[in-house]
Amino acid sequence: MKATIERATLLKCLSHVQSVVERRNTIPILSNVLIEASGDGTVKVMATDLDLQVVESLAAVSVETPGAITVSAHLLFDIARKLPDGSQVNLETADNRMAVKAGRSRFSLPTLPRDDFPVIVEGDLPTSFELPATTLAQLIDRTRFAISTEETRYYLNGIFLHVSDDELKAAATDGHRLARFTLARPDGAQGMPDVIVPRKCVAELRKLLDEAGDTMVLIDLSASKIRFTLGGQNGVVLTSKLIDGTFPDYTRVIPTGNDKLLKLDPRSFWEGVDRVATIATEKTRAVKMTLENDKVTLSVTSPDNGTAAEEVPADYSAQGFEIGFNANYLKDILGQIEGDTVELHLADAGAPTLIRQDDKSQALYVLMPMRV
Amino acid sequence: MKATIERATLLKCLSHVQSVVERRNTIPILSNVLIEASGDGTVKVMATDLDLQVVESLAAVSVETPGAITVSAHLLFDIARKLPDGSQVNLETADNRMAVKAGRSRFSLPTLPRDDFPVIVEGDLPTSFELPATTLAQLIDRTRFAISTEETRYYLNGIFLHVSDDELKAAATDGHRLARFTLARPDGAQGMPDVIVPRKCVAELRKLLDEAGDTMVLIDLSASKIRFTLGGQNGVVLTSKLIDGTFPDYTRVIPTGNDKLLKLDPRSFWEGVDRVATIATEKTRAVKMTLENDKVTLSVTSPDNGTAAEEVPADYSAQGFEIGFNANYLKDILGQIEGDTVELHLADAGAPTLIRQDDKSQALYVLMPMRV
Repeated sequence: MKATIERATLLKCLSHVQSVVERRNTIPILSNVLIEASGDGTVKVMATDLDLQVVESLAAVSVETPGAITVSAHLLFDIARKLPDGSQVNLETADNRMAVKAGRSRFSLPTLPRDDFPVIVEGDLPTSFELPATTLAQLIDRTRFAISTEETRYYLNGIFLHVSDDELKAAATDGHRLARFTLARPDGAQGMPDVIVPRKCVAELRKLLDEAGDTMVLIDLSASKIRFTLGGQNGVVLTSKLIDGTFPDYTRVIPTGNDKLLKLDPRSFWEGVDRVATIATEKTRAVKMTLENDKVTLSVTSPDNGTAAEEVPADYSAQGFEIGFNANYLKDILGQIEGDTVELHLADAGAPTLIRQDDKSQALYVLMPMRV
Repeated sequence: MKATIERATLLKCLSHVQSVVERRNTIPILSNVLIEASGDGTVKVMATDLDLQVVESLAAVSVETPGAITVSAHLLFDIARKLPDGSQVNLETADNRMAVKAGRSRFSLPTLPRDDFPVIVEGDLPTSFELPATTLAQLIDRTRFAISTEETRYYLNGIFLHVSDDELKAAATDGHRLARFTLARPDGAQGMPDVIVPRKCVAELRKLLDEAGDTMVLIDLSASKIRFTLGGQNGVVLTSKLIDGTFPDYTRVIPTGNDKLLKLDPRSFWEGVDRVATIATEKTRAVKMTLENDKVTLSVTSPDNGTAAEEVPADYSAQGFEIGFNANYLKDILGQIEGDTVELHLADAGAPTLIRQDDKSQALYVLMPMRV
C-alpha cells in the first residue's frame, strides 16, 4: 500500500473512528485501524470493538499502490493531530511496518496483517428506512440520558426502537425514569423487529450526526444488527450488534389517570432545582416540591449543609401536597424541554409523574418520586 | 452580622479564596471562610489551610449590622455561582445559622464561630519591596514547572528566592532540571533572608496576578513568612508560611565550560520533540538528538510503537554527537522561550546542558541528559 492523504482529511476521519477503539485491549488487533487504499483513489478506514464497527471513506490525494494494512488507531491519530496544518501525509507499507511521512517527520509503525482484522458479519438486513439526521439527533437527545448503566440489567443499556401502529418509538429507562420519543413511521419501517441499540453505538452515532447537517441517514436492520449510513459516497457507515434481550413493556408505567396538572416555566424550574440542590449531598439527592395554589416551593434539607428553599411561580389549581424527586433526574428531563412551559401530571406523592411539553410533544417522560 | 453584596462581587471574591480551602478537611473549620462585615461598608472574606491564608476585601452594597461568622467555603461559592446574574445577596446571621437570600431563593447554612477560625500569626516582616505584577508573573512562569513534587525532598517543593550581589534570583529544581530567573534587586530587598515559597502559594499567587494587570505587588517577608499584597484597598492579601529547609547550592550545577553551541528556532524544536515523542511510552520518555553540521535529528525508538524521526534546521558547527533528553522536560523549557532562537550549550552526552534565549535573557535553564 502507498497513498498520500491531506492531513486535515486524515485527521477528521481518524477523530471519528478512533473513539470506537477502546483504550485498553487484550486482543492487540482491536487497538488498530484497518486502512485500505483502492486504485480509484479512495481510502477506507475502519475500526471495531467487535460489537461496534465504523467504516469511513475518504478521497486520497493519490493512491500509488493499492493495498491494506492495520496500525495502532490512537498512535496514528496522535501523529495526525501533531502534524503541521496543511501538510500531506504519505503512508507506505514495507517489511511489516508502515512508514508515515509528512514534512520533515517520518515514523515507522508496527503493523498487523489486514486478514487478522475482525469484521462484523452483517448478514441480511431486511428492514430499511431513512430519517433526517436532525430528527435522529433529537430522538437520541430526548432519550439517551435515561439509559441504564447497570450492567446486570443489560437489556436496559440502550435505546429501544419499535414500531407500534403508525409510529416509530424510541424509549429508554433505568427503572427510575423513562424517556420516550415518538415519530411518524418512516417508509420501510413497517414490520421491523423490536431492537435495543447499545449505549456506545448511540454515543458514536450522536457524534457523527453533529457533522451530518440536514442530510438523510439510511438505517438498515435485522433482529441482531443495525447499520447507519451517513453522508453518501465519502461517508461513514456505523454497524452495531443489537442487545440480545427483551425490553420490558414500558407502556405499563406511563400513567394515564394523573389528574393534578402543574404548569411552569422549565427554565426557572431547572434553575430553582439546581440552586436548592446545592445543599444536597450524595446521600440526599432529593428535592421536595410543595404544591400550593399557583405556587411551587422547592426545598432541600441536609443534616450537614443546612436548608434551601425557592419559590417558583406556577399554574396549579388542584389540591396542595408534597412530592420529592431526584434533583439530577428532574434537571435531565427539564433540560430537554424547549418551549416556555412544561406540564407535570401528578397523582400523589408515591405515584409516577408524567412530564411533557404539551399534548402535542413528541417526547414524553415518566419520573418516579422519592420519599422526602 | 447583616450585609448585602452584589452577587458578581461576592462570586469573584469567593472564586479567589475558595481555592485555598482544601476539598477534604479533618478539622471542620478549615472548610469554612470567615466573613467579616464592618460598619464602613467593607466585607473581608478570609480562607486558610493553616499554611496559606488569603484575605480579600470587597465593597458591600450595605452593611446593616457589622459582625463576623464562618460558613462552608465551597457551599457558599456554589450558591453564589448559581444565583442569577445581577442579583443582590443578603447575608444575615441568627441562631448559629447564616441566612443567604437572593431573588426567590433562601438558604440557611450551618456556621462555626469566628473565634475558632485560625489566623496565621505573621510576626514581624522586616523585608519589604515592590515588584510589578507582570514581572512577578513572569518570574513564576519561568521557574514553577521545575518545582519538585517529591514530598521527601520538601526543601525543593517551592521557588527559592534570594538576593546575591545586586540581583534578586528565583530558582526551582527537581534534580533533573533547574530553572532560574534573575532581576535587578528591588529597593528594600537588600539583606533579605533566603526563602523557599511553597508550591501552593505560588499557584494561588499566579492566579491572582492574572487579574492584577500592571499594578505593583507589595512583598513583605521574614525568614518564616511571606505576604503578598495586591490591588490596594479592595485588594487581596496572601500570607504563607515558608518552607523550613535549606535549598541546595544550585549554582554548582550551572555549567560554565560547555563549549558546543547549538542554536535553533524554539517553536519548530518544540513541535519536532512533541511529534517524535508520540512514539514514546511511559517507560521511554527520552528523545534522542543527533547533532551534525547545521542539523539536528530528533528520534525516538520504542519497542512497542516503532520509530519516529524528524530533522530540525539548526545552527551548529562543533563536533557531531548524540544526546538524549526527557521530551516533556525539554518541552517545558522550550515553552518558556519567547524569541526566535534558543541556545543550547552542550558539553557531552552525560553532562548537564545549559539552555537560554541568549546571553541577555533573565531566565536560564539547566537540563540533565538521559541515556539513549
